[in-house]
This record gives sequence, structure tokens and C-alpha cells, in this order.
Amino acid sequence: MHRLHHRDGHTGWDRRRAPRRHVDPGDTVELVLADCFGGQLGPDATADAIAALDLARANPLTGPVAVPSAAPGDTLTVEVLAIETGPVGWTALIPGFGLLADEFPDPHVVVSSLTDGTVDFGGFARLPARPFLGTVGLAPAATGEHSVIPPRRVGGNLDCRDVRVGATLLLPVEVPHALLSVGDPHAAQGDGEVCGTAVETSATATVRIGLRRGGDLPAPQLELPAGASSPHGPRLVTTGVGPDLYAAARDATRAMVDRLGTDHGLAPVDAYALCSVAADLRIVEVVDAPNWVVALDLDLTVLR
Amino acid sequence: MHRLHHRDGHTGWDRRRAPRRHVDPGDTVELVLADCFGGQLGPDATADAIAALDLARANPLTGPVAVPSAAPGDTLTVEVLAIETGPVGWTALIPGFGLLADEFPDPHVVVSSLTDGTVDFGGFARLPARPFLGTVGLAPAATGEHSVIPPRRVGGNLDCRDVRVGATLLLPVEVPHALLSVGDPHAAQGDGEVCGTAVETSATATVRIGLRRGGDLPAPQLELPAGASSPHGPRLVTTGVGPDLYAAARDATRAMVDRLGTDHGLAPVDAYALCSVAADLRIVEVVDAPNWVVALDLDLTVLR
Repeated sequence: MHRLHHRDGHTGWDRRRAPRRHVDPGDTVELVLADCFGGQLGPDATADAIAALDLARANPLTGPVAVPSAAPGDTLTVEVLAIETGPVGWTALIPGFGLLADEFPDPHVVVSSLTDGTVDFGGFARLPARPFLGTVGLAPAATGEHSVIPPRRVGGNLDCRDVRVGATLLLPVEVPHALLSVGDPHAAQGDGEVCGTAVETSATATVRIGLRRGGDLPAPQLELPAGASSPHGPRLVTTGVGPDLYAAARDATRAMVDRLGTDHGLAPVDAYALCSVAADLRIVEVVDAPNWVVALDLDLTVLR
Repeated sequence: MHRLHHRDGHTGWDRRRAPRRHVDPGDTVELVLADCFGGQLGPDATADAIAALDLARANPLTGPVAVPSAAPGDTLTVEVLAIETGPVGWTALIPGFGLLADEFPDPHVVVSSLTDGTVDFGGFARLPARPFLGTVGLAPAATGEHSVIPPRRVGGNLDCRDVRVGATLLLPVEVPHALLSVGDPHAAQGDGEVCGTAVETSATATVRIGLRRGGDLPAPQLELPAGASSPHGPRLVTTGVGPDLYAAARDATRAMVDRLGTDHGLAPVDAYALCSVAADLRIVEVVDAPNWVVALDLDLTVLR
């Protein structure tokens, strides 16, 4: 078991960043994660605190973790074993950020208390905690430092609520040693994350690292066991990542057709038809400009 | 109980079309619905039959049903009481149609048998039947005849899998008497309907007509009772309809914020934040060119 704290972390993706740990496939890593505001908000936060946020400190990541056996073209797998969130969550309207940013120009915050698996959302709503990791990604091949806000082919700020305990996230490796970093824990979020933030909180997460040779995935994928979401059997989730939702939907669909051929021997025409009747297109996030994430979500029990 | 058969139906939306029945709010109507191919396919259909389809006969509707008390600006409600599908379903790849039309240029069909609540999908997949009405709409205000393929503000070919037994679809009335027509039953479909068709079948459906004064909805909405989809409490689904998925997502979100204010007294900023953490953006259909449908789906139990 390796351990890594966000005080040794970073913002910005950069392939030149020195690794904080070296791990082998099969190893587990415990990661202490800051909330996406980098600890700038307290339990009594108000709109004024949102207005005063230093956004250069947003979305701090814990890492990078190097996997020396990982090479470009391989697929790094990140299995989520545990997520323990903090006691407080913040959902902020940040000026200029969010699907309706032009219609909601003013800062606002809803503070949640997180107890016994429930999110008490500002005293006016209650929802089950469904904790997940908003940001899990690898260093991109392109040189230089890249913003942590938009997700990319190598993952990052996917804000996909399926990256929860039990899930395995598949990421395409673009640089030697992969260089994994993790952050942005969420206690709950809907598909889309429409206001731009989830129930943002701190957390300690445990993940198991794995490696599959090759794959050269076009974008991140997820494998979910039966019961990860209650009425579902095991699920496969493919994604498309980019600035156009329609193109991202096409990418997610093409990736699912490919996987159904590779894993289950379906002809492309049959796989495509099956996606139409049994898989769901979801807008996973539409706020981490300039890149959105669309997922195609298939319950694999239909193939039994 | 009124009864209406597709042999008295139509293709094309047109406000000048003579009503086949006149009904009052509270009345139920039994509708015999053709499949979306208008009966052109048999149980042994092959790709040649898809190539030979007369698409001018596609998506025939049963109606129109006039509601004399309905006026422009009102909201017509259609509660789905029963759907009995036929024994056979067809899922077709139609050249030029579908999310990956350019990558799948050739006709193809998967024939399903529908028995005991199960769809046997071409012998290689099995899924639970989740029958719904693909097309439920009103005559648009604009004069002339309009294609039945794209959905519109007044509904139509929404291809929304929530229009199932127990659901109430809310449609904005644009012309006197509303002029409701129904068709395109589906035995199963995923969000997106990516290949362009669902498990297309014939059906007999029973609906109850209702009328709410005013509302002037920006787009269709759905109210779903607890248990309509198993782990969910009562749900509210708002939609955006149009040629751009991003704009449609914005429209669906704005409509949900409005409803949460009207129905539950939430301030817009709190409603918007709640949507971000508890509601899911779904791509309902992305194939009925030129208009796509995006839904925002909220489990209302979070407000209890």
C-alpha cells in the first residue's frame, strides 16, 4: 500500500513533472485528496467566499504516480476500492462557469452536510451520497503544462459519476510511466453537472492500479460490476470527449461497437443495432470548457 | 372510451387536417397503431426489404383527435394507461439515417420476437420489453404540412423511452382543439436511438386525455409516478428540442429550474444548483433529423 497526500500534489498536467511515487500493476494506493476549491471554503461559506476564490488554486491533484512498466499505447486501469468523504460539501455557482453561466451571473453557494450516507443539501433537499472521483487522469503526450479543467483523451476532469467504488476506469497511456494523478472528489452529482460544480468535498480514496498491454483506446472507458448501480448487471461505459456533444456521442457509439466486436464477437451492424435498443447516451459533463463528455452506457446482461 | 384505427390515420402534421374524433378532458382513447414502417416488413424481413422500403409511408400516425376545449397556450396531458405490442419487432439500419450513417451505408435489419415481456433480439441478445410510444404530438401552429420525422415544441417523434405506461406527457397546445396524433410504438429503446430505429412494432395503446389551462410550455415535459422506473421515486423530466444538443441541454435545464420554482418554491439559484447534483442530462434521441431531444431527469424524492 502506497500513500500520497495532496500537499505533495500539483495543478496542471505536465509530462515533465517528477513522479511522487513509483508503483507496479496490482499495487494499491491511498490518496488524500483536497476538495476542488483547494480548502479555500469553510462550513459557513457564503456567496462572498465564492466571489473571493483564487481560481488558480482550483482542482488540485494528488500525484503524479508513475507506473514504470506502462508505455504509450497501453491501457492503465484504475479500480476504485474505497472513498471516504469529508463532512462538508459545497456546490457553487461561479461567475462565467456552468451551462447557464450567462443567465446566472452572480456567485452563490449551497453548503451540504454529509452524514450517514446522506447529503443534506442546504437544508432544502436530501439525497443519497454517491461519492466518486471527479478527476482521474494521465499526463498527456503534448509538451507543456495543460489546464486541469477540461477532460481529455487521457481522462482528467471527466466528472463522471460512475468513477465510484467498484468501478474500473480504463485510460489510454500517452507517455512513458503513464503519470497518474487524482483529485476533485464529489459526494454526489447528476449527469451534466449543469451548474458547474457537484457536492464538492475532500476525501481519502484507495485505488488499485492495473495495466493492460495495448488497447490504444480512443477515449476513457469504464467497466462496472453487477450491482454498482442497483438494477443493473455488469455494465460497459464508453465515452467521447471533446467540444461538440454530437461528435462526442458519435465517438462513444463507435467505441462501444468496437468493444462489442472485440469482446463478444458481434458484427458491427448488429452491435450498432443493439446499442440503439439497449444502451443509453448520457451527457456526463457539459461544463468543463472547452471539452464535454458523452457516455454510451450498456447493461451487458442483455448478451447473456 | 373512444376508439381509433391507423387505417383512418395520416402522415404529416397539418393544422388543417379534419379530426377523426372529438374528446373531452378526462376521456380515454384506444388507439390502434401501425409500426413505423407502415406494415411493409414481415417476420422474415431481410436487408433487401429495408432497401425496398417506401419511406414516404414511414411513421404513420393514428389521429388527429380534437379536444374542443383546448386553446393555444394551454397544456394538453396524455397519460399512458396501456400498451399492447405486436409479436414481432424490427430494428433497421436505413441508409442515410442514424448517428453513424456515414460509417454504416448499407441496409440491415435485426428481427426480434416479443413474448412474455422479453425481446429476443435477433437470437444474440435478450432484453426486457419496455414498451413506449415513440410519437405523441399535436399539430404545430405553422401552416402547411410538416414531416413526421423531426420532433418539435409540440412533441411528435420524441422517441423518449419514458412515454410508457404510468407516464403523463405534457404538450404545449399551439392550435385550437390541440389535434393530437399518436404512432411509432417501440418495444424497447436506449436513450439516443443511435442506429435510427428502436425495436419497432405495432401496438394498441390506451391513453387518458387531460387539459391544464395555460402553462405555455417551452417544450414537452413528463411526469412519472414512483416505480415507473424501478429505483426511482416520482420524477419530473423536462426537455429541449432542436438541432443543437448544447442548446437543447440549456433549454431542458432552464425548464427544470422554472418548474422547481413554480411547483416547489425554490429560488432559481438553488434550483440550478440542485439540478447539478441530483438531475441527469440524457440524450433522448439524436437521429430524427434535424431535431434532437435532450432531457433533464430529476427524482423528486430529493425534495421530501
